[in-house]
Amino acid sequence: MRNIKLVIEYDGGAYAGWQRQAGDPTVQAAIENSLATLLREPATLIGAGRTDAGVHARGQVANFRTASAMEPPRIARGLNALLPDDIAVLACEEAPESFHARFDAVARRYAYTISTSPTALERRYVWHVKFTLDLDPMRDAAASVLGTHDFTSFCRAGADVRHHVCTVRDAAWSASGARIRFAITADRFLHGMVRALVGSMVDVGRGYRDAGEFRGMLAKENRCEAGPAAPARGLVLEEVYY
Amino acid sequence: MRNIKLVIEYDGGAYAGWQRQAGDPTVQAAIENSLATLLREPATLIGAGRTDAGVHARGQVANFRTASAMEPPRIARGLNALLPDDIAVLACEEAPESFHARFDAVARRYAYTISTSPTALERRYVWHVKFTLDLDPMRDAAASVLGTHDFTSFCRAGADVRHHVCTVRDAAWSASGARIRFAITADRFLHGMVRALVGSMVDVGRGYRDAGEFRGMLAKENRCEAGPAAPARGLVLEEVYY
Repeated sequence: MRNIKLVIEYDGGAYAGWQRQAGDPTVQAAIENSLATLLREPATLIGAGRTDAGVHARGQVANFRTASAMEPPRIARGLNALLPDDIAVLACEEAPESFHARFDAVARRYAYTISTSPTALERRYVWHVKFTLDLDPMRDAAASVLGTHDFTSFCRAGADVRHHVCTVRDAAWSASGARIRFAITADRFLHGMVRALVGSMVDVGRGYRDAGEFRGMLAKENRCEAGPAAPARGLVLEEVYY
Repeated sequence: MRNIKLVIEYDGGAYAGWQRQAGDPTVQAAIENSLATLLREPATLIGAGRTDAGVHARGQVANFRTASAMEPPRIARGLNALLPDDIAVLACEEAPESFHARFDAVARRYAYTISTSPTALERRYVWHVKFTLDLDPMRDAAASVLGTHDFTSFCRAGADVRHHVCTVRDAAWSASGARIRFAITADRFLHGMVRALVGSMVDVGRGYRDAGEFRGMLAKENRCEAGPAAPARGLVLEEVYY
């Protein structure tokens, strides 16, 4: 069996997330269905990141095994012709037999975009906040997640994981005009983690809490401590590192 | 009567263009209807640029006269609450009595974006071309429209204008990854002009014509000479200058 690697961009707005589930449209199911049509055999995708309902990707990575002899460029073109226009295959290539999109990933980068002014053109990809944000304490808060920590406080309850320890390589806010962007790179992410971090840091930026309280939340390892999750539409899985 | 100036961003995808017309949804009608609800009196908008069906704006400018005493920030907030989410008022301010969004504009800037790879997140705002483009001859062609010319060759037939002479201040292609962008600033634009220019320059970029033939098209002052119009969705009215 050949092992094929895909890099995928999608607008998650119309999907119940990446992962296939009965009854709801998902990105994985849409691609698997198109693959089955194209290759005339069922295919199972392994995705690097299980993005939530409404979350987007600019660089999701997935792999699948196939007995088909179709060349990678033809697979990419065929998929793009069959897929709905909110999913695009950016790259398709032969991968080593042992490649596993999820287990082999050493890090993932997510970006979250906030707009402090209304926007029509980016309305599907930003969280429009109507209050003023003070970036300095948000930057202090972001700096405190760098390194290895237990992120239980920022994990959605009921997530099925063995432990909540993640190592964050980069976590920083940047601003350009009315757009404020948070980028975070870590070895792994827990369910709802980026949205809980962003929601809690926005609470800091609007003065509901200070950066010290944010550090306290992290230290308490208790989900009840964190702020409300930021809306899904501002979040994009930007890149997966191997 | 007060004279109020608006700066407006919109996704033109769902509209039959800027200008009000019977039977079709237009951006002007959507804003005028929201203004009438907000101010409790009819209002007529004068827009700086009559964007075509499917064309977007990041900085359309319009003005209207009103007897209402409502403060500009409240008008902006009220409009943004009433308008559909594909139209956003970015700024609202009191303008001098004589200000006319269309006649006072000294220049407009449009940008057209092409993608040479499929894209899900920007699918509404780019023209995805599946052929290879050579940027050098496209740049030669763009340079030839600089200055004052008769643009009859790039004006849609039947447009109701007195003359076809426009002065182009800037016209340039730039590239970044899989995105190729054309930006053009001129004192005025004819109906369909940017899309006809882009379509014709893309013909040059893919080798159907050369830059000399493009210059010949311009010189012939005959619409039948130009290439096919580029699709509306890649075009954005970026800014209006006063």
